[in-house]
Amino acid sequence: MEECYRLIGKDGVGRIAVCTQDGPIIIPVNYLIEGESVIVRTAPYSLLGEHAQQDMAFEVDSLRHEERQGWSVVLVGKSERVEDIEQMTELRSSRRLEPWAAGSRHLFIRLTPRRVTGRRIT
Amino acid sequence: MEECYRLIGKDGVGRIAVCTQDGPIIIPVNYLIEGESVIVRTAPYSLLGEHAQQDMAFEVDSLRHEERQGWSVVLVGKSERVEDIEQMTELRSSRRLEPWAAGSRHLFIRLTPRRVTGRRIT
Repeated sequence: MEECYRLIGKDGVGRIAVCTQDGPIIIPVNYLIEGESVIVRTAPYSLLGEHAQQDMAFEVDSLRHEERQGWSVVLVGKSERVEDIEQMTELRSSRRLEPWAAGSRHLFIRLTPRRVTGRRIT
Repeated sequence: MEECYRLIGKDGVGRIAVCTQDGPIIIPVNYLIEGESVIVRTAPYSLLGEHAQQDMAFEVDSLRHEERQGWSVVLVGKSERVEDIEQMTELRSSRRLEPWAAGSRHLFIRLTPRRVTGRRIT
């Protein structure tokens, strides 16, 4: 598990999956690791924002297609809105959570994993 | 939509999400595009194999983290086992679907999308 957090702890991009009434969705996100949790930033009325109390899966990988090698780490657990004002202010200034896309993305979602899985393909 | 298929049509890696009783999961996969469908290869008793009649989401992206640019394409729809023997034989010899990981991975799953979404971040 330490190894998993070491791998995903670098600056990078992950993907979030959540189950909606119309099937699962996958969305690329930038993220911040905080202890064992992941924090992502989104817009309040986005698909992620609308499912912010549900289970989510978060995945980061590094796959070298040519060599058929790589690793993948998946965290699964409950998500929740970050509602602490102080923490929101702090998160807003985080370079890692700076949104790529335009628009008002001022909702932060924390995923607290109950399951962490790592896979290495060599 | 043509643009989406052009982007994901190259040789590469995608990610599949499916909803399980214990929350969503995300799994990296190599894949083959066949018409508007995606075919992936897995083991019959794998998590994907066990959910082979359900809705799945399939995502391919190309994200340049440093430049905060990239694209992401997501297909959502019903999945099903490929059961036609002739087609299975053909798929088995596909270089694109050659499994990375070891083990007996002789189940092919076809996802037929009812929704294709593309997102470009510039």
